This record gives sequence, C-alpha cells and structure tokens, in this order.
Amino acid sequence: MLTVYGLRSSGNCYKLQLLLELTGTPYRWVDTDSANGATRTPEFLALNPNGKVPLLVLEDGRRLAESNAILCFLAEGTPYLPTDPWERARTLQWMFFEQYSHEPYVAVARFVCRWLPADHARRTELPGLLERGAKALDVMEDHLGREAFFSGGRFGVADIALFAYTDCAADGGFDMTRWPCIVAWLARVRAQPRFSAMVA
Amino acid sequence: MLTVYGLRSSGNCYKLQLLLELTGTPYRWVDTDSANGATRTPEFLALNPNGKVPLLVLEDGRRLAESNAILCFLAEGTPYLPTDPWERARTLQWMFFEQYSHEPYVAVARFVCRWLPADHARRTELPGLLERGAKALDVMEDHLGREAFFSGGRFGVADIALFAYTDCAADGGFDMTRWPCIVAWLARVRAQPRFSAMVA
Repeated sequence: MLTVYGLRSSGNCYKLQLLLELTGTPYRWVDTDSANGATRTPEFLALNPNGKVPLLVLEDGRRLAESNAILCFLAEGTPYLPTDPWERARTLQWMFFEQYSHEPYVAVARFVCRWLPADHARRTELPGLLERGAKALDVMEDHLGREAFFSGGRFGVADIALFAYTDCAADGGFDMTRWPCIVAWLARVRAQPRFSAMVA
Repeated sequence: MLTVYGLRSSGNCYKLQLLLELTGTPYRWVDTDSANGATRTPEFLALNPNGKVPLLVLEDGRRLAESNAILCFLAEGTPYLPTDPWERARTLQWMFFEQYSHEPYVAVARFVCRWLPADHARRTELPGLLERGAKALDVMEDHLGREAFFSGGRFGVADIALFAYTDCAADGGFDMTRWPCIVAWLARVRAQPRFSAMVA
C-alpha cells in the first residue's frame, strides 16, 4: 500500500489526499508536523534529504518528493493526467506556475495570517504577498474566462494543484469576490465525484 | 519553426537554448528583455498573461510558458526525458525542486549581486538567499554522491533545469568548492555532445 507522509492542513499535502480520494486509491497517511520539526529529524531526512512533506513511499520503499511530481506519478493512466503531449504540457505549465507564481504568495499569506502571532515581524510581508498573490489569481481568472479547467481542457492534476491553496486563499486575506471565474471553478472542483475537503 | 521569446542571460531562458542545441532542433530566438519591461507590454501579455519569459510559440501559434514545462514538451520522444513512469516522476521531482527550493535562492542571489547597485536595499536579502541556496546545493550534493545525473539515472531535462543556475551560482557569491560532487556534475554536463554555454 502507498504511504504518504504529510501535514493534513498543508495545501501541498492535501493535494495528494484529494487525488487519492478521487481515484479511490488505498493509502496510509503518516501525520508529519513540519511546523514542529518532524521533517528535520535524522529519520525523516534519511527519507527526504530536502526535509519537506508531502513524501510518497511505495510499498517497495522507493520514495518520491514534491507534491506536483507525486500528483503526476499517481495520475499516470487515469483521466486526471492527459496523454496528449500538448495537453500534458499545458497541464505541467499550470503546475509549475502554481509552485513558482502562486504558492509562494497565496499559501504564504495564509501561513502568516493563520499561524504567526499578530505582532510577528513577518506580518510586514503581507502587503507584498497579497499584491503578488493577486497577480497569480488574475492570471487564473484570465484563463478561466476561456476554459473550464486547467488540465488540458479538463479537470485533472493541475486543477488539484491550484485548488489546494486557492480554496483557502481567503484565510490569507484575499477577497475572492474579485475573481468570479475562480469562485465558479472552485465550485466545479468541489462538485467532482468523491471530492474530499482539506481538514480545517 | 519553433519561436522562443527569451532573455539570453536568464537561466530559465537558457535552459531552452541548451536543450534545443543538444537536440539540434531549429528555432528562432526573439530577444525579450524582461529586465526592461519587454514582458509587461500589452503585446507580450497577450502572448503570456503571466508576463514572463521564456515563452515557446509553435508554428501554428500555440503558446507554452514555464521553462520546465517547455523542456518536458520539447524532450518528449528524445533520450532527455525518460519514458519509464518512475524515472519520469523522479525527473519531475527534481524539476519542481529546482523551481521551488533552488531557483528562488540561487538565481536571486546572482540577480542581486550582478544587477542591483551596491547600495540597493535588496542587498540585505543576500545572507538569507545564500543560506537557503546552500541548503538546495546540499540536497543536490547528497544525490550526486549516489547517482551521476538527475533525470532518472541519466542526463536529461532535470539536469538541464538544474545546470542553468547552478553553473553560474558563483556569480551570486556561492563558494562552489563546498560541493565537489556538483562541480564534477557540472563538468559532466558541459561535456555533453553539442553542449551550448549561456551567453556571458
């Protein structure tokens, strides 16, 4: 059986929960609290030298890191990853966009707002995070004005990757009424059969 | 013929130059100076709403952004992208690592050192960039103690992605003698037939 090391409230970890539930794949979840040092222990660093969750471990012990690489691996041969080279490339484009232009702002704003004390020095980062996160949401809104999903014209791994932190972006102070196409897309994702929500 | 919009001295853009030269693929390069606003014009934003280079344009006008997604698309069917699902997943793992844990520190340290004035406020970011960049290089060094390359056991797109900013990391103040396995790997990449260096 597959094993996932992850923190349930992390969007990057939640991506795997969502895909595994959508596909009805059996898995074992090992709670790993990256906020409290569980990813910096010698035992965990032996599994993932980069010290991050999520981490996927196959039954034979092989290990794979990086949430979006894991999504692609698990989705291979399912309807959630296109086989057509161009549609696959467009899917990957959105997954790299998510990790480079979206997560570092949208997810980090949520982290600062929800997990840091009100007087923490990193609160000064919030205006910049909200500005750059809004730019990423603008790019998504633009796309959703033309297409219903991000994974080569259909629902798939790029939607799962982008849904994780967009669905809880309001936690970081983003006013989602600015992006009506995104709000409608979030509802389309939640309406997928076997959809599973992130633990609050 | 393929068209690449890019800035020659950007590592993200150079990745495409390197793969296209390695594979002997004809292409047209349109110099696009992101440092001077060329990616924020209405004309360019119509091509890529995220306002970034590199951008690939196919002969029929279809467009693809995100350097690592473009690498995967161009490498499909070549020896530079594994076909085995596990080796492909490991390759993608390193490409997401590059964009999330490596480029934001190693590339940005180079940008701060080479392109910002000596009294620029962002110079204060350098110690943090060097610390987090060194962690990424440590993770690469660890891997290279066990394997010769990053793309599923052989040279390929993950090596190209990681080579771009690692080969010029010294520009950002990284002392590469700390990472002898990386230094040896850089030489192995430079020794590939048809290797093409980044414009200085």
